[in-house]
Amino acid sequence: MPEFLELLMPEEALHKLLETLSPTPQVEEIETILALGRVTASPVFAPFPLPTFARSTVDGFAVRAADTYGASESLPAYLKVIGEVPMGASPAFSLSVGQCALIHTGGMLPAGADAVVMVEYTQAVRPEEVEILRAVAVVENVLKVGEDVSIGQEVIPAGVRLRPAEIGGLMALGITRLSVGRQPLVGILSSGDEVVPPEQELSPGQVYDVNSYSLSALVQTAGGVPLCYGIVPDRAEALRATAVKALAECDLVVITAGSSASARDLTATVIQDLGPPGVLVHGVDVRPGKPTILAVCNGKAVIGLPGNPVSALVIASLFVVPVIEVLQGLSWAHPKSVITARLSLNLPSQTGREDWVAVRLLHKMEGYIAEPVFGKSNLIFTLARADGLVRIPPAATGLDAGEIVEVFLI
Amino acid sequence: MPEFLELLMPEEALHKLLETLSPTPQVEEIETILALGRVTASPVFAPFPLPTFARSTVDGFAVRAADTYGASESLPAYLKVIGEVPMGASPAFSLSVGQCALIHTGGMLPAGADAVVMVEYTQAVRPEEVEILRAVAVVENVLKVGEDVSIGQEVIPAGVRLRPAEIGGLMALGITRLSVGRQPLVGILSSGDEVVPPEQELSPGQVYDVNSYSLSALVQTAGGVPLCYGIVPDRAEALRATAVKALAECDLVVITAGSSASARDLTATVIQDLGPPGVLVHGVDVRPGKPTILAVCNGKAVIGLPGNPVSALVIASLFVVPVIEVLQGLSWAHPKSVITARLSLNLPSQTGREDWVAVRLLHKMEGYIAEPVFGKSNLIFTLARADGLVRIPPAATGLDAGEIVEVFLI
Repeated sequence: MPEFLELLMPEEALHKLLETLSPTPQVEEIETILALGRVTASPVFAPFPLPTFARSTVDGFAVRAADTYGASESLPAYLKVIGEVPMGASPAFSLSVGQCALIHTGGMLPAGADAVVMVEYTQAVRPEEVEILRAVAVVENVLKVGEDVSIGQEVIPAGVRLRPAEIGGLMALGITRLSVGRQPLVGILSSGDEVVPPEQELSPGQVYDVNSYSLSALVQTAGGVPLCYGIVPDRAEALRATAVKALAECDLVVITAGSSASARDLTATVIQDLGPPGVLVHGVDVRPGKPTILAVCNGKAVIGLPGNPVSALVIASLFVVPVIEVLQGLSWAHPKSVITARLSLNLPSQTGREDWVAVRLLHKMEGYIAEPVFGKSNLIFTLARADGLVRIPPAATGLDAGEIVEVFLI
Repeated sequence: MPEFLELLMPEEALHKLLETLSPTPQVEEIETILALGRVTASPVFAPFPLPTFARSTVDGFAVRAADTYGASESLPAYLKVIGEVPMGASPAFSLSVGQCALIHTGGMLPAGADAVVMVEYTQAVRPEEVEILRAVAVVENVLKVGEDVSIGQEVIPAGVRLRPAEIGGLMALGITRLSVGRQPLVGILSSGDEVVPPEQELSPGQVYDVNSYSLSALVQTAGGVPLCYGIVPDRAEALRATAVKALAECDLVVITAGSSASARDLTATVIQDLGPPGVLVHGVDVRPGKPTILAVCNGKAVIGLPGNPVSALVIASLFVVPVIEVLQGLSWAHPKSVITARLSLNLPSQTGREDWVAVRLLHKMEGYIAEPVFGKSNLIFTLARADGLVRIPPAATGLDAGEIVEVFLI
């Protein structure tokens, strides 16, 4: 498993992984009230039209439009008020020539009525009579049956992540259960002899496990369910045993390597042996995160991340998040959160490599300024101090101060 | 409670509400692994420095820098290899003049060492001797104690919503529990005689409750806990009884009015009577959502939303979400998700009123195009088809096709 023989660009590397994986999302039926953030497994069709009955869009009087023709302030039409349309029920009467009925916004048009006159254009004369001061056309101030959504219409395509608006839309159609992609189980293994759990007292030479927790949180934001397998010592047999267990129990396995080159080699060897076809990509032309491993073993993705916490989180955003999305069946991605900003200083970069730089956003009168956040050792607090990441494309030798950049929020 | 006597702009209206409310967020201590999305109640200070020990940033040999001075490929320095630094432990040896030790990335510098030579600039001579082909300066390839974070340094301010990077950062410092703002309980009441729950069969004239569900989902995305009080008939005593109960049990109460003007008046009257100071704003100069009510009753915010599902969701984003954020103690908002796009067509608007228009984003070669999504009755599916909202400022008479706009993702 020699590292870095052939470095792929992140985009090519992801393509190779997803192409080999060709996953079929698993589907489950859940209650709509629990479906926020879940992904539709099939298109949703309207079981009935919206509105389901002809509704008034204003407060006023339901009329026969023909009865109002020619009406004006100087020459009003006089109509007999035969009742009030109850909210939430079918009116018990119908209109004949010369008749009208009081109606509220959202009320159901009585039989015989074909338009509504706004209350502002009417004047009460006697308890049972009203002056109409303006003519209305047929269907004026009326929503016809199916005008918003016709019966059988596709209202939500498959592969859509449900937001508050979609949850409301499903309820408008009485759809209280629906099929969604199952949330992928993501096994997370930390390795490194120097890594210990945060509950433990630190001895000299030891550092706390960061990756298990930051990656678990990232997996949750992407819609996956993290399962932590703890910290595994940098020995082949221990790492292999835990990886085999995680691969059997999860839909996707993420292993963060120890920080030394030998620990990374060990991770690659263990992943290669987990099942065919094995390692597809070993080394990606990106900074941070060059020693990334992408593999498919027995039909499941296995991703080896660098041990450095910033590299691990950046690379997980590039590779783990898309796999979680694909496993949920997401195909209709709402645009990612991107803010356009002006770079505060020059960012040099090596041509042919993609760089990701953490930036803080400052809101100024003229728009956002992106200010790079540097940290000598790429400590996790470099990201904690940042609002997002700026991508320096492989073709560039860097970005200039004052240049407009897209900041991907983290 | 006459409506619309004085219309405030959304921003002024929100300011008036928050100023009167002046809430004190309630605090609870929780486990860091459960803290994703929660808001820090106090600043977090580093209990120890990071790194906690001098660490190598490369694979190579720990040396005394002075022993390498003058070393080059043609005239290497010869050093005696006295051991290998174990990962995760303190080396059991110290370096004397002319000695070095094998060290891995992240390994702890042995006593006596003050720099590391990368393995690429060394050559093995004998098992216990190595050629150093390049001189290193003191602390070269070494991270000193506290170089990233010094002891006692503020690493996360108060009022920050925790993302994966902060969760990782807390763990790096062994902080497994922390104080966060309690998640506000948000009581949601739907009213309207025409509104029925989605489990029920629809009779003519009835519509399903959308707002309870779309607002619950929105409350969750903002970090609140929704509590639904169901659908209340448009009668003062029923609405008052449920509102009193919700106000006692929750931190914030949201009431969506029935669609008719009389139902809206009823909501305003009931809110006014819930407790002092009562209604602060009745009517906001915004479309959709003019009949909005903002109140503070007994120290808690009560917000009356229009019954139309699109208006309710847009207005809740403008007023309910900020109150939830303030109640959690959020003061350090990461920039909201905004995408810059080019408007596809003219959007007329009335000067002096703020308009919010739902748009779909199309990704083209030259950037995003914002295409307005129109729906005759502002049905909830208008929003479900949209990616975000564009604000037309009160001073504008509209926006022109081709204009660059900010799209607030929903």
